[in-house]
Amino acid sequence: MLVSEIKIRVRYGETDQMGYAYYGIYAQYYEVGRVETMRTLGFSYKDVENKGIMMPVLEYNIKYKKPAYYDDELTLVTKLTEIPGGVKLTFATACYNQNKELLNSGFVTLAIIDKNTNKPCRLPDWFLDELKKFF
Amino acid sequence: MLVSEIKIRVRYGETDQMGYAYYGIYAQYYEVGRVETMRTLGFSYKDVENKGIMMPVLEYNIKYKKPAYYDDELTLVTKLTEIPGGVKLTFATACYNQNKELLNSGFVTLAIIDKNTNKPCRLPDWFLDELKKFF
Amino acid sequence: MLVSEIKIRVRYGETDQMGYAYYGIYAQYYEVGRVETMRTLGFSYKDVENKGIMMPVLEYNIKYKKPAYYDDELTLVTKLTEIPGGVKLTFATACYNQNKELLNSGFVTLAIIDKNTNKPCRLPDWFLDELKKFF
Amino acid sequence: MLVSEIKIRVRYGETDQMGYAYYGIYAQYYEVGRVETMRTLGFSYKDVENKGIMMPVLEYNIKYKKPAYYDDELTLVTKLTEIPGGVKLTFATACYNQNKELLNSGFVTLAIIDKNTNKPCRLPDWFLDELKKFF
Repeated sequence: MLVSEIKIRVRYGETDQMGYAYYGIYAQYYEVGRVETMRTLGFSYKDVENKGIMMPVLEYNIKYKKPAYYDDELTLVTKLTEIPGGVKLTFATACYNQNKELLNSGFVTLAIIDKNTNKPCRLPDWFLDELKKFF
Repeated sequence: MLVSEIKIRVRYGETDQMGYAYYGIYAQYYEVGRVETMRTLGFSYKDVENKGIMMPVLEYNIKYKKPAYYDDELTLVTKLTEIPGGVKLTFATACYNQNKELLNSGFVTLAIIDKNTNKPCRLPDWFLDELKKFF
Repeated sequence: MLVSEIKIRVRYGETDQMGYAYYGIYAQYYEVGRVETMRTLGFSYKDVENKGIMMPVLEYNIKYKKPAYYDDELTLVTKLTEIPGGVKLTFATACYNQNKELLNSGFVTLAIIDKNTNKPCRLPDWFLDELKKFF
Repeated sequence: MLVSEIKIRVRYGETDQMGYAYYGIYAQYYEVGRVETMRTLGFSYKDVENKGIMMPVLEYNIKYKKPAYYDDELTLVTKLTEIPGGVKLTFATACYNQNKELLNSGFVTLAIIDKNTNKPCRLPDWFLDELKKFF
């Protein structure tokens, strides 16, 4: 299994008048988590795009248990639980605060798109080869 | 059934380098849709908060079919399909572009929280009475 | 002089825990104001980019007098006070709330960049010709 | 003089279709820079708000030299060049990329507001005492 952790501090501009981190900001946090998971493989998502693969989001689901507050230091734990066989990729994410409380969890399913054809494709070998080392 | 429509134009700052409206921006768009649905009832979400009810998000799900682009004029169709009996409220949303193509759809479940006790509660009568007129 | 007005309603996700519209959100509001000013000329900023001109921001200045609150309906008044002779364009913006109180004002200077050469250029004739009708 | 540095990585959702970090995102980056400058003093901006002082922005100015791109690791250098004598506080910020190129610079002037009276006030002694150690 591929797992990574990254810490993100809640910015003032990310809070709302309820005093919570806005529910919509987690799409960015989860994306930062995914990016760091890929970096574990030895390349960045920037490299992936430069090599001709785009990964737009197909589905995003998040369940909120507790709010985060301004200046909280969150830990995003992102997992890829299986080697994707098809033209999609699903990351599971859990978000904890500095007291190790689970704040929310969810998943994001990405399409794998060949930028040249603009069509769905399987993960290229250079990506799969690195990924297999973790399974 | 309670339904409302609102138009939202995609801002430049809401696009990403893929050239799409960023997948995370729809949390804001869906929220604007919910707010307009409430306004149909004769009050704003601002009024709801001022009257002592807070509605933090419990779950958010969105499935993306097609991207939106900069300056697209989107139509957000938001529905409340049943009168909530408990301490939650679920809105279903669909997002169309100016060519009436479905771009994405999803739902948001809100908790109903009494600001005084900070505990879940049922919808107050002044809210329910307006809501019942649509069912 | 070229002037335009556009109304923008403050979204929940744009507030911060002070209860104000976040100071950083006005960059988006001012940009929406500029775009609507261009639309007055008969084309959108999207057209401008499609015709090979990019307008990245060189300078942005804003002075805040009063805060905006959630659900406020703001009016953005954007002006182009002179026909630009060189390779820059400066828009002046003022932001009012529904009580006609001035909330903030500022200016944004844009570079005019030819996308082919990636170099600064003057406004193309098709832009200037429309602009001159207002002066 | 009080100086601090903080690194910020550009998120995907912070880019725009020009492929640059959106010009409006720097308001958040500069704010993160200010917060870290305060942390150098031994307290967070969160503490400042909890102790009854609010610091809304009065003026924000930024000049852009070069764009930042997705996944760039930026360094924000934030300075307080003098001990504020009145009811305002001005931070100067410069933003560099990983190649030590200056991308943009600017300043932010904050009001110092007593939350109880909602009126401008001088910096409280507990803040000034820490600040003086750096001058």
